[in-house]
Amino acid sequence: MKVRTKSPLVHNITNYVAMNNSANALLAVGASPVMAHAINEVEDMVGIASSLVLNMGTLSETWVEAMILAGKKAIEKGIPVVFDPVGVGATPYRTQVARRIIETCKPTVIRGNASEIMALCNSNLITKGVDSTAESNAALDSAKLLSKSTKSIVVISGEIDYIIEGEKVAKISNGNTLMAKVTGMGCTATAIVGAFVAVEEDVFMATVSAMAVMGITGEIAAQQSKGPGSMQMNFLDILSTLTEEQIINTYRNE
Amino acid sequence: MKVRTKSPLVHNITNYVAMNNSANALLAVGASPVMAHAINEVEDMVGIASSLVLNMGTLSETWVEAMILAGKKAIEKGIPVVFDPVGVGATPYRTQVARRIIETCKPTVIRGNASEIMALCNSNLITKGVDSTAESNAALDSAKLLSKSTKSIVVISGEIDYIIEGEKVAKISNGNTLMAKVTGMGCTATAIVGAFVAVEEDVFMATVSAMAVMGITGEIAAQQSKGPGSMQMNFLDILSTLTEEQIINTYRNE
Amino acid sequence: MKVRTKSPLVHNITNYVAMNNSANALLAVGASPVMAHAINEVEDMVGIASSLVLNMGTLSETWVEAMILAGKKAIEKGIPVVFDPVGVGATPYRTQVARRIIETCKPTVIRGNASEIMALCNSNLITKGVDSTAESNAALDSAKLLSKSTKSIVVISGEIDYIIEGEKVAKISNGNTLMAKVTGMGCTATAIVGAFVAVEEDVFMATVSAMAVMGITGEIAAQQSKGPGSMQMNFLDILSTLTEEQIINTYRNE
Repeated sequence: MKVRTKSPLVHNITNYVAMNNSANALLAVGASPVMAHAINEVEDMVGIASSLVLNMGTLSETWVEAMILAGKKAIEKGIPVVFDPVGVGATPYRTQVARRIIETCKPTVIRGNASEIMALCNSNLITKGVDSTAESNAALDSAKLLSKSTKSIVVISGEIDYIIEGEKVAKISNGNTLMAKVTGMGCTATAIVGAFVAVEEDVFMATVSAMAVMGITGEIAAQQSKGPGSMQMNFLDILSTLTEEQIINTYRNE
Repeated sequence: MKVRTKSPLVHNITNYVAMNNSANALLAVGASPVMAHAINEVEDMVGIASSLVLNMGTLSETWVEAMILAGKKAIEKGIPVVFDPVGVGATPYRTQVARRIIETCKPTVIRGNASEIMALCNSNLITKGVDSTAESNAALDSAKLLSKSTKSIVVISGEIDYIIEGEKVAKISNGNTLMAKVTGMGCTATAIVGAFVAVEEDVFMATVSAMAVMGITGEIAAQQSKGPGSMQMNFLDILSTLTEEQIINTYRNE
Repeated sequence: MKVRTKSPLVHNITNYVAMNNSANALLAVGASPVMAHAINEVEDMVGIASSLVLNMGTLSETWVEAMILAGKKAIEKGIPVVFDPVGVGATPYRTQVARRIIETCKPTVIRGNASEIMALCNSNLITKGVDSTAESNAALDSAKLLSKSTKSIVVISGEIDYIIEGEKVAKISNGNTLMAKVTGMGCTATAIVGAFVAVEEDVFMATVSAMAVMGITGEIAAQQSKGPGSMQMNFLDILSTLTEEQIINTYRNE
């Protein structure tokens, strides 16, 4: 994998809960993580990074300002920004912050679960309503609208992962329900996307690859795990040694 | 267990060290954790939560303000507040903050170790002194005084756990010394209490159940562990699969 | 080990990523960790601590102020300060903060990797240039200059660890490459140095012992690990049970 040979510096402004997991996952996948949020240095850090990951899990005002400063610098420098709108829709503040980050940082990729992606869509960010009846279809329709209106690639994580760019949709059906029992797994997915888009020209394919690696790792790790504690451990062990053969043999997109 | 079927949203404003552990323990026990501390959103988050956990492990001014805002909202909304006065007595600031939180947030449950509970008692929060000679008795007497003066249920964690409401005392003698070698185990206990009081009307019994689940999980996990590293892993694995049968067979209150 | 019998209180002002790891490693080695960063209490916390660990991994302005307050109090009280200049050289802000901390807190020990130690040297902190051609020699020369100019013991962590005091150099060649795949391992080394210098008069020997315990633990743990996940777990298990015999049999300084 190109991430292993290039070892890109991935700058994360992420939440307290998932910082350790994200850093370990980035190391396991072969990237070089840095966590930095001081207003005084985020622009300089972006200056030496190959991608920027913004995650609003445990947001507060100074952190949001740092995210926006960093995001603007990333646009200026031309490196990809990956955004994780954790919990958007849960409070008005989260919705407002997510909107502001999308507007100012123009994320290359937005990754969330179905309800987060739908909340982004319903937040007046895009004007058209969503009329689907089925929940999953609704999320997919929301994601398409979101992708068109923001020009971002949108990822819906779940039992099936969808990667959406306008009308184009890729599907990954790897993974295991145990993944949802480990905190920060979604944030880890976002961080891994950050590593892949840092080294690939084709951002859509990079995102699909990252989500496939995530799902395949989780699926193999779960087979060896007795619960969320061993899952967390096995996930990192598998991720650090995952081979192309394992990927090819395990990958499912139906 | 009712926590598994109801999956209550537990809002935590807790310390940096134990955030990841607390979130994972809440997931393992079947609850839905959220960590949020921004002044701009804590009240809205309490608005959708079933209980609030306040933990002052790594406190600072803005976090304390957020805790108090959230606590007041929880009182208004009528959801239980569980308070962990980490390190109270170690510095004057901690003592002052603990006092302020107790006075303004009127915690349903206060959980600490013996020295923390005694420190709360000696902080002028309650005027009567504690005259016992034996350390454990002293803590028990302190806890009773504290419970009467605050109307809170008080938990003393230790080799033996005591759950106190006025003069009523329940005792749990499960657990293992290895638990004290894993950072954040006390905070995890507090979080689990937060999950149980969120779904039970009888707060005393909910607290006893939570502390029993904690001690039993720790005891079973320790039997399978070689040290604090494997303990941390096994704790989550056991917690996520704990059966009523295991609880009944392992529970000890002598 | 004296750390186990004395169980010193080690006050850490450290980064979000490594807080949990540092606390667990300190517990495993027999010390008593406390994490506290509020301006309102850091001086009081130093007042009851046996050593102070400052780590600038995820720095911000208020945290830096807290570090400096705590450091000054440590000097006044006469307890050792151990400093970890994480990422110094990566941004101008980091370099400026590292310099300020060294000047005001006069660390007893500074621990970093080769590039951090060299960055400290090139930051005008010391005026003489470094002329070596080979990278490792350059770092060693930088470390000697840094040690002489700051009167600190300087540790360069890496495949081989060097502990430097002026011209005196001790060498430890234990360890395993898997250590670099677990986030916060360097920070953990710094925390363990904090525990050892808290209980030993001979600070140089204490630092050598701490780094040997670190390397030996990592080496033994790696032999039992399949990747960074199990490494993290085994590291704590081994650290908590490490015997003098294991140390004597595994220690290498060539």
